Amino acid sequence: MTDNDFGLTVEALNAAVEESFPSIYDMGLRCDTLGKGTAVVRWTFDDTRLRPGGYIPGPTIFSAADMALWFAAFTLIGVEPMAVTSEMSIRFLRPAQGADLLARAVVNSSSARRIVGTIELWVDGAPDRLVAVAQGTYAVPIQKSDV
Amino acid sequence: MTDNDFGLTVEALNAAVEESFPSIYDMGLRCDTLGKGTAVVRWTFDDTRLRPGGYIPGPTIFSAADMALWFAAFTLIGVEPMAVTSEMSIRFLRPAQGADLLARAVVNSSSARRIVGTIELWVDGAPDRLVAVAQGTYAVPIQKSDV
Amino acid sequence: MTDNDFGLTVEALNAAVEESFPSIYDMGLRCDTLGKGTAVVRWTFDDTRLRPGGYIPGPTIFSAADMALWFAAFTLIGVEPMAVTSEMSIRFLRPAQGADLLARAVVNSSSARRIVGTIELWVDGAPDRLVAVAQGTYAVPIQKSDV
Amino acid sequence: MTDNDFGLTVEALNAAVEESFPSIYDMGLRCDTLGKGTAVVRWTFDDTRLRPGGYIPGPTIFSAADMALWFAAFTLIGVEPMAVTSEMSIRFLRPAQGADLLARAVVNSSSARRIVGTIELWVDGAPDRLVAVAQGTYAVPIQKSDV
Repeated sequence: MTDNDFGLTVEALNAAVEESFPSIYDMGLRCDTLGKGTAVVRWTFDDTRLRPGGYIPGPTIFSAADMALWFAAFTLIGVEPMAVTSEMSIRFLRPAQGADLLARAVVNSSSARRIVGTIELWVDGAPDRLVAVAQGTYAVPIQKSDV
Repeated sequence: MTDNDFGLTVEALNAAVEESFPSIYDMGLRCDTLGKGTAVVRWTFDDTRLRPGGYIPGPTIFSAADMALWFAAFTLIGVEPMAVTSEMSIRFLRPAQGADLLARAVVNSSSARRIVGTIELWVDGAPDRLVAVAQGTYAVPIQKSDV
Repeated sequence: MTDNDFGLTVEALNAAVEESFPSIYDMGLRCDTLGKGTAVVRWTFDDTRLRPGGYIPGPTIFSAADMALWFAAFTLIGVEPMAVTSEMSIRFLRPAQGADLLARAVVNSSSARRIVGTIELWVDGAPDRLVAVAQGTYAVPIQKSDV
Repeated sequence: MTDNDFGLTVEALNAAVEESFPSIYDMGLRCDTLGKGTAVVRWTFDDTRLRPGGYIPGPTIFSAADMALWFAAFTLIGVEPMAVTSEMSIRFLRPAQGADLLARAVVNSSSARRIVGTIELWVDGAPDRLVAVAQGTYAVPIQKSDV
C-alpha cells in the first residue's frame, strides 16, 4: 500500500536507485519513508566516512537533502530520472554526529516546470535539534504537451 | 497574555515598529500573530501599490518574509533592533494578487550568534497555494558575555 | 550606440520602467549603465528613506539587486516584462549608508528557460567594500518555439 | 613564493588535507591554484565516479565549490580547520561532463566573524560555459580577542 498517486514504494525506489545510480546508492543513502509530496532519506551511520572530530561530512548532508527532495518530487510526478536539481540553498546549523542522519523533504509547490521544497535534517534520536535546513528547486523536463 | 518568553504582544511590537522604523511601518506591513519561535506578518491589500497586472511586488513579498523572521526571532531573544538579516534566499512560486499577503516564519534554530528560520507566504484565503517560500539567517550582535 | 544585441539604451529602459512599472520607478531606482550581459542600477541617496541609524533599507538593497539582474537579462533577450524572478539569494555584508547605492549584475548563464546571474552592491565611492552580494534566476516565459 | 599573506602553498595545503581530511582528499579534489582571496579547486576526471549519462554528480560539484571557498578563505585568515560552512546556495546551469571539473572561489567580504564568497564552476577547456555558480558563507570561530 502506498500513500502517493504513483504506487511508489520505498523498496521499489531503492531498487531503482541501486540499479541506475549506483554511485548514489554506494554513498549509503536510502529512501526511508514516502508520503504524498514528502519523503525521508536515511544515511546509515558509518564511522569510516566521518570528518575529523567524528562529524558527518557536509557533502553527505547536502546529498541527503538533495535526494529527499528528489524522492518527494517523485511522489507527485512519478519517477523522473531526468528531473535535475536546478538550485539548492542549505544552512548548516550544528555539528552532525553519532548516529544516522535523516532528511525529510516536503514539497511546497509543484508545477509543470518545477518543484520547490523545504528540507529539514537531524541526527536520529534528536529531531528537535536540526543539523541543517535547505530549500531547493527541481526542474522538470519540458514535455511537448506543456505547450 | 502571550505565548513567548518575553511577554511580547502584537500591539506592543507594532507600536515599536511604528516609532522606530517608520519606513517599514509605512510599507503597510504589520505583525499579525506571535507564538513561541513563530510569527505571522500581514500586508494589507492596497491596490495603489501593485505592479502592472495587479501583482503584489516582489520587494513587498521579500520584506514580508524578512519581517516575519525578525519578529519570530524576537519571540526567542526579546526585541533586538540590532539583529540584522545576514542572508535570505527566496523562491517565488506563483503570482500574488487580489487580497492581503501573509507571511509565517518558523525558527528552525537559535544560538547565541544566529537565528535561522523558514518562511511561507500566501494570499489570504488560499493558504494551500503558497506564493513564495524563503529561508534566512539573522545575525545576533556579539555580546561581551558570549566569550 | 549600444553595447548589446537589442539596441537597448539606458534612457529608453528608464522611460519604459517609468511608464509600465511606476511603483518601481518611484522607489528611486534607475538603470545607470548597460553592457552585454551586464547592467548597473543606481539608487539615488534619499535621506527620507533610511532606517534608523541612517542605513539604506534591506528591501531597497534587494530591489536594486533584483532590478540589475532584470536589466542585464534584457541585454541578452530583449525587454521581456514577463520575465519574472524565480529565486534570489542575498547576503548582507556590512551597513550601507551615506551615498548612492550601486548594484552591478553579470549574467552567468542564459538559456531558453532561465537566466542566472551574480550581483555585487556597494555604496558610491567604496567599490571595494561591498555591502551585499546576491545570485538569482529569472524564468523566461515558455514560447511555443521552445518545443 | 606565494601570493597570500600566510605563505600558503598549494602543495602544503593538499598535504594538510590529505593528512587531516582523508575522506575529502579521497573524493579526488585538490587545490589547483591560490591567490590572495581566491583559490581554484580541481576534480580530476574519473569515469568510475559518474552518474548515468556520464555526468559529474551534483554532490561532487557542491563539494568542489565548498572546498574552493574554504581554501580562498585560508588565504586571508590562515589555515583554520575549524572554519565551517554556514550556508551555501548553488545553481546548476548545465550538465558537467567529459573532463576535469574546476571551481574558482573569490572572497567578496571578510570580517572577524564570517567570510562570504562567490564560486564559478566549469569543465576544463570550456571556461565560458559555466556548469554551476554558488555563493556561500564561512563562519569563523569566535576568538576571545573578538570582544
